[in-house]
Amino acid sequence: MTTHELTLDTALLLEQLATLGAIGQDCVQGGRTRIALTDAEKAGRDQLVQWMRELELEVRIDRVGNIFGILAAASADGDPQALMMGSHIDTVRNAGALDGCYGVLAGLAVVRAYRQAGVRPLRAIVVGAFTNEEGVRYQPDMMGSLVYAGGLPVQAALDTIGIDGTRLGDELERIGYAGTMESGSIVPHEYLELHIEQGPVLEAEGKQIGVVENLQGISWQKVTVQGVANHAGTTPTRMRHDAGYAAAACIAFLREEVVGAAPDTTLATTGALKFEPDVINVIPRKATFTVDLRDPDEQRLQAAEKRFADFLVEIAEREGVTIETERLVRFEPVVFDAALANRIEAAAERRGLSHMRMTSGAGHDAQMMARIAPSAMIFVPSRSGISHNPREHTDDEQLILGAQVLLDVVQECLATP
Amino acid sequence: MTTHELTLDTALLLEQLATLGAIGQDCVQGGRTRIALTDAEKAGRDQLVQWMRELELEVRIDRVGNIFGILAAASADGDPQALMMGSHIDTVRNAGALDGCYGVLAGLAVVRAYRQAGVRPLRAIVVGAFTNEEGVRYQPDMMGSLVYAGGLPVQAALDTIGIDGTRLGDELERIGYAGTMESGSIVPHEYLELHIEQGPVLEAEGKQIGVVENLQGISWQKVTVQGVANHAGTTPTRMRHDAGYAAAACIAFLREEVVGAAPDTTLATTGALKFEPDVINVIPRKATFTVDLRDPDEQRLQAAEKRFADFLVEIAEREGVTIETERLVRFEPVVFDAALANRIEAAAERRGLSHMRMTSGAGHDAQMMARIAPSAMIFVPSRSGISHNPREHTDDEQLILGAQVLLDVVQECLATP
Repeated sequence: MTTHELTLDTALLLEQLATLGAIGQDCVQGGRTRIALTDAEKAGRDQLVQWMRELELEVRIDRVGNIFGILAAASADGDPQALMMGSHIDTVRNAGALDGCYGVLAGLAVVRAYRQAGVRPLRAIVVGAFTNEEGVRYQPDMMGSLVYAGGLPVQAALDTIGIDGTRLGDELERIGYAGTMESGSIVPHEYLELHIEQGPVLEAEGKQIGVVENLQGISWQKVTVQGVANHAGTTPTRMRHDAGYAAAACIAFLREEVVGAAPDTTLATTGALKFEPDVINVIPRKATFTVDLRDPDEQRLQAAEKRFADFLVEIAEREGVTIETERLVRFEPVVFDAALANRIEAAAERRGLSHMRMTSGAGHDAQMMARIAPSAMIFVPSRSGISHNPREHTDDEQLILGAQVLLDVVQECLATP
Repeated sequence: MTTHELTLDTALLLEQLATLGAIGQDCVQGGRTRIALTDAEKAGRDQLVQWMRELELEVRIDRVGNIFGILAAASADGDPQALMMGSHIDTVRNAGALDGCYGVLAGLAVVRAYRQAGVRPLRAIVVGAFTNEEGVRYQPDMMGSLVYAGGLPVQAALDTIGIDGTRLGDELERIGYAGTMESGSIVPHEYLELHIEQGPVLEAEGKQIGVVENLQGISWQKVTVQGVANHAGTTPTRMRHDAGYAAAACIAFLREEVVGAAPDTTLATTGALKFEPDVINVIPRKATFTVDLRDPDEQRLQAAEKRFADFLVEIAEREGVTIETERLVRFEPVVFDAALANRIEAAAERRGLSHMRMTSGAGHDAQMMARIAPSAMIFVPSRSGISHNPREHTDDEQLILGAQVLLDVVQECLATP
């Protein structure tokens, strides 16, 4: 069997992306909003399940609402582990049409290629759509895959209270997606996730395919600086305890010294910042800001955290302010499976596509699945790196090329049971 | 005539401060709110005018609502210029009882000392209460004294529209303080303003009297940094246009380089700052912040502005952002009259009070009056430097000592016609 005898129905893939993208769409803003377990997301789930049934897949829902469409293996002999592809179909508010959906629907397109060719795979193929990847309504994000990989007890997930006061388990029941399958019970032999990059690197580098070999570790902190409010005109500099200046010095230090120590890998961002009382001629009494640190190497990520923590001590002493930090999120970096990455690279190469090894900056279900199976991701370019936005865009041709590479890798994986 | 034969009624001064401080007071918050030309401020004006009439002063109201209480000279021969003392009785929201009121009521106490001793001064003594010093409702602040000194046409002041949509002239009519006296028509021979420091310097230095020899120049700007919002995890540092980082670098530069170039005189404060969209994992698209620069020397203030402007160009280039600045306020520094400052210093010395030369960091009516008459200010300590706050406090003993020094200086000035 060569890797080219199966054919993707590329037109149907694009059509399904458009159809799913219209569910929950706001005609004025252009974006769609299918936040996990809302009515709009239920409509998306129903559409997905209908498409799975049209392919005569076995549809199973696990206890946390993850949806799996299963194409059975050619032979039921023994119990060979399944190949799993997947991603998610929930969205942020006013989102693009591709994030998550592309990976799920490309998975369906791969299965469809098998169906249409009448080929039964040597091992089962499973297409998964994981619950609440975005984490907009219920924390943490990537929840469905985290539960599936054993990182969060299913009961804890069901008992999660959302920002609207609802209980996740109750909402699952309400929309009819409280399944009975035990999460994690289909243990994949490997997990593949095709995704838009959501960043500008592929476009900037002029590459068609990103071979994602690892995923950054993420460290989120909230920093609160407490100083003393005083009159901007009458307080000599030496007598100031300026929470705003201390915060600004921290943000500058993050870029200049923390990122500066590992400029090719460490990322630091302060996205949110508030001053109190926030008045032109009053020295800020309080400054609150967030720190988002990322690095694909755990040692370097820890070094960045340490460098920043040391600076907090230094600036607190120097300015006479107190600084408290609260850890919000901490994920260790994930290294994807080298053999799968090699296969992705080889597949792109065989098709004559330009490609590059890269790190995923965003979190994905693949990072959770990597806990229980060899995993890897394939990226296609995002125009201007924009995502979580109605302007999220990848050219149709690129979407198709990514799905082709996915199909090639699936065929290769299934050729070696 | 020695400088000690007149006696202050110190108990009455403190009582009047308490009485005026109770007008517009909020029993829950403790502070009082007598924003210019509101009903509460009218009540304060009515009380002040009543006290002026009790002292049998001639009360005159000018076209912008400034109130003057005039103790006529011993002889009407010739037209010797008056000695003027004053300040303001309007307040910010939830203010202390002393800011402004202390200078006005201490002026009345000085006049009362003349009245009670049956002494007629060689020149007229005028106590002024200037309209809208705080600038909460109508911009600019120090408006009444600015108009009086000829820095703003009276019609422009009357036509000012407030933050509540009201026209200043209409509100003056409404509360009955649209006077007919032409602003500036009593040209003072000298102007003296006693005030709480509103800063921490006297307390920190352990001094009882501040001899204010100058007043800082003030430069207010609003800075808007426009960058590009992008994902904090997927955007390499070299591809970022981070408005938040650029703003932080500016704030750090202000302290470290602009203040650093003249640490004893230049002050820089960023009191207000906003990020957009202000989300933890999104690189800020936009940052807006204020810059409050002060220095008692115009050359140094210009040098500080220049240094900062040069850095804006540099950081805009380096980070690939655009930066716009809007000038909000610009006052040149004011140098007070050296002879008056010497008299204040000598008076404090004669009374055995500790004293120091200092710069006023806040703006005061005296800076406007300095345009038309030799002017100076006397400061007394503010506990913890707090002002514009119900916790504003100066010990009664200190309030009395300040008024004594004022009386001494007035007597000296009037001894030399």
